[in-house]
Amino acid sequence: MSPADDGAEALIDVEVRYAETDQMGVVHHANYLVWFELARTRLCSQTGHHYSEIEQMGYQLLVTGARLDYRRGARYGDTVRVACTLERLSSRGLSFAYRVHRGETLLVRGGTDHVWVDVAKGRACRIPERLEQPFASILNGG
Amino acid sequence: MSPADDGAEALIDVEVRYAETDQMGVVHHANYLVWFELARTRLCSQTGHHYSEIEQMGYQLLVTGARLDYRRGARYGDTVRVACTLERLSSRGLSFAYRVHRGETLLVRGGTDHVWVDVAKGRACRIPERLEQPFASILNGG
Amino acid sequence: MSPADDGAEALIDVEVRYAETDQMGVVHHANYLVWFELARTRLCSQTGHHYSEIEQMGYQLLVTGARLDYRRGARYGDTVRVACTLERLSSRGLSFAYRVHRGETLLVRGGTDHVWVDVAKGRACRIPERLEQPFASILNGG
Amino acid sequence: MSPADDGAEALIDVEVRYAETDQMGVVHHANYLVWFELARTRLCSQTGHHYSEIEQMGYQLLVTGARLDYRRGARYGDTVRVACTLERLSSRGLSFAYRVHRGETLLVRGGTDHVWVDVAKGRACRIPERLEQPFASILNGG
Repeated sequence: MSPADDGAEALIDVEVRYAETDQMGVVHHANYLVWFELARTRLCSQTGHHYSEIEQMGYQLLVTGARLDYRRGARYGDTVRVACTLERLSSRGLSFAYRVHRGETLLVRGGTDHVWVDVAKGRACRIPERLEQPFASILNGG
Repeated sequence: MSPADDGAEALIDVEVRYAETDQMGVVHHANYLVWFELARTRLCSQTGHHYSEIEQMGYQLLVTGARLDYRRGARYGDTVRVACTLERLSSRGLSFAYRVHRGETLLVRGGTDHVWVDVAKGRACRIPERLEQPFASILNGG
Repeated sequence: MSPADDGAEALIDVEVRYAETDQMGVVHHANYLVWFELARTRLCSQTGHHYSEIEQMGYQLLVTGARLDYRRGARYGDTVRVACTLERLSSRGLSFAYRVHRGETLLVRGGTDHVWVDVAKGRACRIPERLEQPFASILNGG
Repeated sequence: MSPADDGAEALIDVEVRYAETDQMGVVHHANYLVWFELARTRLCSQTGHHYSEIEQMGYQLLVTGARLDYRRGARYGDTVRVACTLERLSSRGLSFAYRVHRGETLLVRGGTDHVWVDVAKGRACRIPERLEQPFASILNGG
């Protein structure tokens, strides 16, 4: 992966599922959010804490916003590569950026915003102290 | 609906969603299980307890089996009718039957089996006492 | 609905499906795009042409962009109301806006951008002539 | 893989997606049909013809039946292994069997039945001649 002082990037290969296509013959546009999440899971695990472990600590990264820019559609038979980077990190939230490629062709770009939630209290919170350094280490261009 | 001594039937109308189609131009076969569940929710609510309320009591109806028999495919633009009945009721589990029609045409038939789970104990249990009579009242041909 | 010179608004009621929830206990964020599409289908049908009919004419409204702003999560047991309006209409594309409410509470806002595609030619095209007036009639605040 | 005279088996590893969980905290039961399909795609490709290529030849393998037997639930954080074998092959249809394991633990078993469809004619047909030998070669225990 990238050198540590440039932050990290998660790359996953996703084989398109037949169920993900629609009658237009391409992947339905909502599925890219699911692929983004799969790449985000991979990036988060590069902090040393799988996201399921973060939930077990009592925290969640609630999605507050999402943006998608669709250039070309993925098709059944394709294996696409999804890249995820951490673009913004503040005391209360963070933002990820995503790119989906088929070979050299950019298919979709996007971003998601998240806030930390303390599950027991049921409200937004600061980033848990023990996760500060791990998430700072994956911040892109940090 | 059916007379009380014949049990109950839930009927719901479902407008096919574009996202539910696949590149074959019909509804992807996994979605019928989701429609079955929507009709099962409606039937359960006829016991006087919405399924979300049953979960809040600390119980779940875990799916242990499913069968689907596909005759014809639903298409985007269709509104289909999904019927659900309670076919079997024992002390520890129950089975539902489903039929999906487009007008007079039968599209899909199916069934699901479930066991009661005590969520706190994390294991199978008998039907909660206060739910015995309500579920008996919706048993088909009871 | 709204008076014709204010354009039109489609309103649909969606009962949350159990399958739409995730382990966070709320509706997974990708499903809102599916609900948006369901409301968009309803709005398009107010032109007098169901979207499936538009596809049969040989045209598609390809999604080129999407934005979602999540305020609160819908839950199993909820029936939410999704509103869709046509915000922008040009010779080659259009944009829709969406709001999801549970009662008076705004849950999610969003928007999608689309271009017309001539399916036979496999490329972007101008709005089909016979659809110009119908779509102008549903333009919001037109 | 298995020796040729024992037929073939496709094995795929699937990382559970957050979106595949439901509020019960396990993978929603409809998703196993999607995973089955992903393993079926892999097995079909062992005939030397990816299923997308078969569709391009003008044929489809329509799903006519499905059975699922759920033992234990997969969870977010799990990577499960899905195995698919061809259990039955006749002139007009075929049946696949599936097993989903997490490590040594069997989670779900199932089966699906399919018939060949000639897309242009819009009706069931015999197996295309050029696919007879390839599919016979992957028949389990053939």
